[in-house]
Amino acid sequence: MARLVLKFGGTSVADIERIERAADKVEREYRLGHEVAVVVSAMAGVTNQLVDYCRSIDPVHDAREYDAVVSSGEQVTAGLMALALQKRGVPARSWQGWQLPIICDEVHGKSRILEIPPTEVDARFKSEEVLVLAGFQGITRQNRIATLGRGGSDTSAVALAAALHADRCDIYTDVDGIYTTDPRIVPEARRIAKISYDEMLELASLGAKVLQNRSVEMAMKNNISVQVLSSFEDKIGSDYPGTLVTNEENIMENPVISGVAFTQNEAKVSILNIPDVPGVAAKIFAPISAANIIVDMIVQDISEDGNVTSITFVVPQEDADKAETVLKELDLLKTSEIRVNKNVAKISVVGIGMRTHAGVAEKMFKTLADKGINIDVIAATEIKISVLIAKDYTELAVRSLHAAYDLDQAPA
Amino acid sequence: MARLVLKFGGTSVADIERIERAADKVEREYRLGHEVAVVVSAMAGVTNQLVDYCRSIDPVHDAREYDAVVSSGEQVTAGLMALALQKRGVPARSWQGWQLPIICDEVHGKSRILEIPPTEVDARFKSEEVLVLAGFQGITRQNRIATLGRGGSDTSAVALAAALHADRCDIYTDVDGIYTTDPRIVPEARRIAKISYDEMLELASLGAKVLQNRSVEMAMKNNISVQVLSSFEDKIGSDYPGTLVTNEENIMENPVISGVAFTQNEAKVSILNIPDVPGVAAKIFAPISAANIIVDMIVQDISEDGNVTSITFVVPQEDADKAETVLKELDLLKTSEIRVNKNVAKISVVGIGMRTHAGVAEKMFKTLADKGINIDVIAATEIKISVLIAKDYTELAVRSLHAAYDLDQAPA
Repeated sequence: MARLVLKFGGTSVADIERIERAADKVEREYRLGHEVAVVVSAMAGVTNQLVDYCRSIDPVHDAREYDAVVSSGEQVTAGLMALALQKRGVPARSWQGWQLPIICDEVHGKSRILEIPPTEVDARFKSEEVLVLAGFQGITRQNRIATLGRGGSDTSAVALAAALHADRCDIYTDVDGIYTTDPRIVPEARRIAKISYDEMLELASLGAKVLQNRSVEMAMKNNISVQVLSSFEDKIGSDYPGTLVTNEENIMENPVISGVAFTQNEAKVSILNIPDVPGVAAKIFAPISAANIIVDMIVQDISEDGNVTSITFVVPQEDADKAETVLKELDLLKTSEIRVNKNVAKISVVGIGMRTHAGVAEKMFKTLADKGINIDVIAATEIKISVLIAKDYTELAVRSLHAAYDLDQAPA
Repeated sequence: MARLVLKFGGTSVADIERIERAADKVEREYRLGHEVAVVVSAMAGVTNQLVDYCRSIDPVHDAREYDAVVSSGEQVTAGLMALALQKRGVPARSWQGWQLPIICDEVHGKSRILEIPPTEVDARFKSEEVLVLAGFQGITRQNRIATLGRGGSDTSAVALAAALHADRCDIYTDVDGIYTTDPRIVPEARRIAKISYDEMLELASLGAKVLQNRSVEMAMKNNISVQVLSSFEDKIGSDYPGTLVTNEENIMENPVISGVAFTQNEAKVSILNIPDVPGVAAKIFAPISAANIIVDMIVQDISEDGNVTSITFVVPQEDADKAETVLKELDLLKTSEIRVNKNVAKISVVGIGMRTHAGVAEKMFKTLADKGINIDVIAATEIKISVLIAKDYTELAVRSLHAAYDLDQAPA
């Protein structure tokens, strides 16, 4: 017997028929003798409708009232899920964030969970009754509803799993796991059986939008194994090989590279002919930062004659024009040339095996060179190497790297 | 400066545009210097949708979960109303039933308000901030949401008005007041300026479905004047002559008759040739009552020879067949004849002036007789006389009575 938290996202509870199918899965886990808690999102489309209502009244609105409005979607699904379970003879009751309670901070609209008081949740969790929690929300110490931001129900689920000391948190979604790369680009992409928290965080920040990053951070901090699996298959978490996001100690053999990720929503900003004076980088990036633009992958060239330098960096594509405007206003850059290129892609290879294996970067650069793909900028962390290339080569680069690191083959 | 509670029903907040118009009215009262609280229903159609969701999962469902689901509609409107007021520069915040709190009993789905703790509501009501309450709901002592049944937002509004010692409770709806009779039948029908609680209760139970009866009872008990007015006119309660439902002491001159009401959803049941033994009425009505059928207007004829009697009574049309079945199973009535007539109408005249005026009943009977309308059954209370007639004569009877009691003319 295990203690499980099952989370169903918006597409998994999109209508009454889908809620019934989700309840079937909960019932199956319950009949296996597990202790079960459920976290639900709003029915797909409901939250967007509620957000539209708020915005149509006032684009700049009181986030506390916004939270009161948009949190209602999960409340509805939680009640309906409890009814669907009761119909199946499974004792169940719904809990809203304020009832459990889920204590949140006052940053309405993107609140963070502060705590789930253990004595209270212990008193409310009964092994013979399924606890159904409305996701995405909690209550502040001022007794007002706060929501956790988009994808927040993942975080609700992991936080509940931590508070209940659950054995596993199963996230039912519309894909059946995390893949070595996007299967639409590389048909040979394989589902990853187990992946470490660190790798998942890198992949998520690179565009693999399966789990909310905060939920992964919380799972890592509390050492909760999270399984990603599809609600559209006739299987349940206890017998289904989704992708388990877990502590790397639980992964017997780490492949050197777990996956290849890519994003096409960034832009390259190059500044040429910068007077090479002390502190020049700080002078350039201070106003960029003040404009709330997040900078990634910075490279500074040392000039040949030592008088001028050039700097290249990457910003989100939507901020590229703003960055250009900010830079053009700098006295320091009056004589410099500023170039913005939105026609770029960032390709990354991620793997914790990289820490103990040499030659990963070399293989990446050689693979791309063999295909005639030019590398513009390089950035690396302990478990990730990213390169910026021309956008047209995205698919070729991803396919070549996927094959080069043997991701096409199942692990031995 | 007055303290006002304004309540907006479902059609008055049916969409964002209607919510904006309702907010305009609240703003106008606020700018006049009044202290204002607002109670809102769910946007028209929302509650039906939520009820359908619950029923489609299970026609027989846990009323506690049903309440958690259906109460969300008012929560949304309350938040949106607060946003619309804030946009107009009017400080406002929404409160849900559990936040204020509105304490309710555990009869989920048709709960009754037990109390609104005065010290808590006092602490939350600020004269410079509009308190926007989600109607139709409260919280039980078990910390679960309960709803008050259909039309319950009227009761929420009156209860809040009582807790705040408000000067008036304005109920904005889709009609502009209470009429002397249905204007679709009698074009000369006039809006009543003031009507007593007792008369309103009689009219409501006779089919004038403007206010929930419980809200009128609560207003009477707490001596809260309730004004019924239309949200579709460009006027507000402080300058608009709707209908004021109030203590009869506040009504200078009571007309003898305030209104003529009618219903066509009843059926007449006649039992002929009943053996006239002691306790016969009790033997007949005990099984009717056990079948949850509500009986009205009972008449027993004394037989000429003293051996047999006959009884006639009125039941809701939907229960008529059930009543017939129940009666046919009685040994006592083996030799009796049971007749059910669904082709009837109940016509009533209502007025507290009746208490001090003779001849009201006589005028009613004479007016109907003059038109050749036969009276089947008569029933009377202190302020109401009802007669049962053939359905075909409904309009003629209502028009004739409306004229006979001078309701066509404005009061002197």
